[in-house]
Amino acid sequence: MDKMTEMKDIQFELIYREIFPFWDEMPDTDKNDICRHSSAVTYSKGEPVHDGGGCSGVILVCSGSLRLFMMSEEGKDITLYRLHRGDLCMLSASCVLDAITFEVFVDAEEDSECYVISGPAFAAVSERNPQIRIFALETAVSRFSDVMWVMQQILFMSMDKRLAIFLSDESARTGLDTITLTHGQIARYMGSAREVVSRMLKYFSNEGIVEVSRGGVKILDKKRLHKLAR
Amino acid sequence: MDKMTEMKDIQFELIYREIFPFWDEMPDTDKNDICRHSSAVTYSKGEPVHDGGGCSGVILVCSGSLRLFMMSEEGKDITLYRLHRGDLCMLSASCVLDAITFEVFVDAEEDSECYVISGPAFAAVSERNPQIRIFALETAVSRFSDVMWVMQQILFMSMDKRLAIFLSDESARTGLDTITLTHGQIARYMGSAREVVSRMLKYFSNEGIVEVSRGGVKILDKKRLHKLAR
Repeated sequence: MDKMTEMKDIQFELIYREIFPFWDEMPDTDKNDICRHSSAVTYSKGEPVHDGGGCSGVILVCSGSLRLFMMSEEGKDITLYRLHRGDLCMLSASCVLDAITFEVFVDAEEDSECYVISGPAFAAVSERNPQIRIFALETAVSRFSDVMWVMQQILFMSMDKRLAIFLSDESARTGLDTITLTHGQIARYMGSAREVVSRMLKYFSNEGIVEVSRGGVKILDKKRLHKLAR
Repeated sequence: MDKMTEMKDIQFELIYREIFPFWDEMPDTDKNDICRHSSAVTYSKGEPVHDGGGCSGVILVCSGSLRLFMMSEEGKDITLYRLHRGDLCMLSASCVLDAITFEVFVDAEEDSECYVISGPAFAAVSERNPQIRIFALETAVSRFSDVMWVMQQILFMSMDKRLAIFLSDESARTGLDTITLTHGQIARYMGSAREVVSRMLKYFSNEGIVEVSRGGVKILDKKRLHKLAR
């Protein structure tokens, strides 16, 4: 093995040890196979990462964030969840999990650095290593819970509650009082229409809960927003 | 072990050998633990089987059918999928799969005979037996695909297409041309409103695709229905 390959494997191994709780117990051949079939990939903001069909591999987010979404034939989309540093994307690796028969799309929400493990290589290792197979399946099942949450929101909640939850979550995530997204972007994240979001934001604004400007949506009355979100 | 218990264990084992592909390879202690913590339960049509919270155990359908659905605070519900003979319900066993943090409801769609394996007993066996853990997770992940399909239908498809798919599927499943469900029941299965379903059925009826009567919905023009469903 040349110096360059060795350096790269060490770099992958450092991160994989963090992510896979059983890394140190894995046989060297399995560890080597995973590192040897990993590549570091950088995605620019907005760039597509996975296009629904095929197997793009198992994607580990090292920095930035990815967005998973579904898309209809007419190109309408709805965000299922986002992946941040340390999150593993299994749904982009349909060749690893046979049980996944639906198509999801992934794009980069920010400039993102990722490690991509080849699907067939990961599948081969998980075939002979139950620990890694269980880890992959558990990751997928926990995302099932996220998707059910989105579905529940879409189906059952009234729009004011949904928007209040979105603004609270987004503010908590970024640590900022101002959400720098356009109405169209908010609508897309929420699986709603821009007009519906604009109307509801106008109502929130009239109530003094938020202030809407070109720069985004500033939260003025956190207490009332949280009350609405409950 | 008395004669009665032994007879019951043999009865469970006959079915479990059919369902779990690796049953014969399992250690006797694991097989015994599962049989000893199984019970045969009969549910009448419409009876609740699992009410969202808690752990009702792993449910195997021996005859009849169960319906899984979500429910909002206001009691509005939407069908996710149905389980028939030989299907295993993992989502009712939240104590087996930690990753499942959402609540689903289950009721009996017909008079149904089921075997219920206690959640903690199943969890203990799957803790020491990776094969059964993998089987449980794969069962859950394959249901993830069903739910995504429902979600895609709700979010993206127009009502005529959704209704055509429902009627085609139902007719294929029962092997009958007449769907003996009320408009309200169809609406509930489809996550829609009775009025919307009635309006669309009237349209189908005017087009000569179906005939609507007290007894249900009779499919007259399969070709056009399938064309709509595509």
